[in-house]
Amino acid sequence: MPALSPLAPERFPELPAIDGLRLATAQAGVKYRDRTDVMLAVLDPGATVAGVFTRSATRSAAVLDCQAKIGGDSDAGAAILVNSGNSNAFTGRAGEASVARICAAVARACDVPEDRVFTSSTGVIGERLPDDRITAAIDGLVGGLAPGGIDAAARAIMTTDTFPKGAVRSVEIGGETVTIAGIAKGSGMIAPDMATMLVYIFTDASIQRALLQDMLGDLTDRSFNAITVDSDTSTSDTLLMAATNKGSAVHDRHGPFEDALGDLMLDLAHQVVRDGEGATKFIQIDVSGAESDADARKVASAIANSPLVKTAIAGEDPNWGRIVMAVGKSGAAANRDTLRITFGDIEVARDGWVSPDYTEARGAEYMKRDEITIGVDLGLGDGADTMWTCDLTHAYITINADYRS
Amino acid sequence: MPALSPLAPERFPELPAIDGLRLATAQAGVKYRDRTDVMLAVLDPGATVAGVFTRSATRSAAVLDCQAKIGGDSDAGAAILVNSGNSNAFTGRAGEASVARICAAVARACDVPEDRVFTSSTGVIGERLPDDRITAAIDGLVGGLAPGGIDAAARAIMTTDTFPKGAVRSVEIGGETVTIAGIAKGSGMIAPDMATMLVYIFTDASIQRALLQDMLGDLTDRSFNAITVDSDTSTSDTLLMAATNKGSAVHDRHGPFEDALGDLMLDLAHQVVRDGEGATKFIQIDVSGAESDADARKVASAIANSPLVKTAIAGEDPNWGRIVMAVGKSGAAANRDTLRITFGDIEVARDGWVSPDYTEARGAEYMKRDEITIGVDLGLGDGADTMWTCDLTHAYITINADYRS
Repeated sequence: MPALSPLAPERFPELPAIDGLRLATAQAGVKYRDRTDVMLAVLDPGATVAGVFTRSATRSAAVLDCQAKIGGDSDAGAAILVNSGNSNAFTGRAGEASVARICAAVARACDVPEDRVFTSSTGVIGERLPDDRITAAIDGLVGGLAPGGIDAAARAIMTTDTFPKGAVRSVEIGGETVTIAGIAKGSGMIAPDMATMLVYIFTDASIQRALLQDMLGDLTDRSFNAITVDSDTSTSDTLLMAATNKGSAVHDRHGPFEDALGDLMLDLAHQVVRDGEGATKFIQIDVSGAESDADARKVASAIANSPLVKTAIAGEDPNWGRIVMAVGKSGAAANRDTLRITFGDIEVARDGWVSPDYTEARGAEYMKRDEITIGVDLGLGDGADTMWTCDLTHAYITINADYRS
Repeated sequence: MPALSPLAPERFPELPAIDGLRLATAQAGVKYRDRTDVMLAVLDPGATVAGVFTRSATRSAAVLDCQAKIGGDSDAGAAILVNSGNSNAFTGRAGEASVARICAAVARACDVPEDRVFTSSTGVIGERLPDDRITAAIDGLVGGLAPGGIDAAARAIMTTDTFPKGAVRSVEIGGETVTIAGIAKGSGMIAPDMATMLVYIFTDASIQRALLQDMLGDLTDRSFNAITVDSDTSTSDTLLMAATNKGSAVHDRHGPFEDALGDLMLDLAHQVVRDGEGATKFIQIDVSGAESDADARKVASAIANSPLVKTAIAGEDPNWGRIVMAVGKSGAAANRDTLRITFGDIEVARDGWVSPDYTEARGAEYMKRDEITIGVDLGLGDGADTMWTCDLTHAYITINADYRS
């Protein structure tokens, strides 16, 4: 069990019950002993479900199954079952059969159609999922279903996470308050063994599936797709969101509900970075002045994924030359003589060279902080983007080189 | 001074003199003390020079200068001057002026046109190049010019390299033997601080510039562009090749000369990987069965650059699930059910799951080797590619996190 991340939030937030949602957790013994490893969420009839999934070409059986089901509109109830300890990825036809057996058992026990049962699995890859242990736990789970308990669900889905991740937001709509509550797991972006990113968000707001799906897609680009720990992409990444449709209705894009949802997703995404394997620094990368937003993302991504930038920050070394290097390799249009680099409020480089006022001592002092903001202005246009990452430390090597052997 | 790489070759090869080439080295004191840090190569009139350079958008002043000159045909002599200790990258207009002063001084001292003087600089980024120390050393260098001495040149261009890199090949053309001799430096692919990749290759064969340039471009894709240590791209990467045109003539592509040149370039490229920062394993990745060669390169690159694959190998962990992950994230067409993975001769996975004969014990035994070959057959087409990399170890973090601070 790794030590608590030094970047962990002080406490888990109070997550209220969501009208139309019941939850339960259980110890199914998939792999771990003496801890919960399965969560079940059951949604009353009338709920809306939308989702965003990994783009990996080797995605897991559970992801493929969710993707096949997610487009359907239905007034029936729905259920989400998640296990930790085994990802059921790259387990061939046997993996598909496991998903089918779990979905059938959940559908029967919860009285929802099979095509409204969504599952996720996270943990070791390539090992047969002991689905019998999960199906054996379902009756107990259904018996324990209750409103609230989202915090327990956040704990049941953890693998190498050092803290449970949750966030909540409230929005006034038409004189009434609706609530959005979410949980996430993940400590690599995204280690396939034990650090798949899973996100579940619930709201009592009323919203149609197509509208919710559109929001999720755009907001994911600016939250979960804007973070990286190690540039690796999981076979199992899943974000599922359910609206129970018990409260006020959301009819349009870009209103206060979407703002609150985006804020909550960013909060959860930042928590994943703060639990990045071996992380000691939380790093924000602000890119502006690019020829396009896509170019700005290329630059931000090149910096956020550069082992040399991330090891320099781990060593509290204000090695801005490595940022110049990352800009150069990104593939985006860049011009040495218009490039400006900042650390927080400190101007480091401009006009193609180090800034006249910059001193190594000021940079070194800044690098001692837990939270680092790197600014890159390309000086070419209006394209902008922000990404978040963590440093690359000895602990990352220890966790990933020594994990199974 | 880091310890000698455990993957270093047993000895530096005997590099013979090349007719029409003279070399010298000197201690200019650019940054290092008590070692050579400048090499000068002077080519007799009639030599052909071709080159391949970094595609970084923030490339160094020396690279930009070489690129402006490399396309010219000339019967005049030529010179190549290389310094270690300072990369003269991201030094603005001052950096350009330094290159101009060095080129002018070399041209005058060697009696060659300025547009036939090529320079490279490798070392720390963003610091003014003390070009006066280099120009002060030129008379001494010219006085010391002699045939042979390529091994001394290989030492003068080292930075964090733990061993000098050289290779030689001979080819029979028209009953005569021509020689190709090359040197390289680099221990990250490519750390901008102190591990830029520089390569200089000399031959006495006679060959026209356009033909040599074509060969170099294609061969670079299969050698220096097929290696990676850490996915980072230098601002200074340079490959320069000079043919002195004293020996037999090469008129066509794809003959024995090109074969020998490709073989030599691959030898040097492998030496760079063997000196990868912190490397303890030399890893070959063979991808076949892709829909195209470009797709195969995407898969090979995703595996070779994956921190999770590289840390697993560092830990001698046969964690083939991470290879599945890397295939999935590569962006290439892939199908779980046709994917086949091998470690050397050991079949690890096929038909979408672990192979029936594979055992973790066999995989773990294989991972103890110094040289690992990972095979991935996508089972979709005829596209193939091979790349080489090294593992990601604690020593890489130590070298790069603790370097300047």
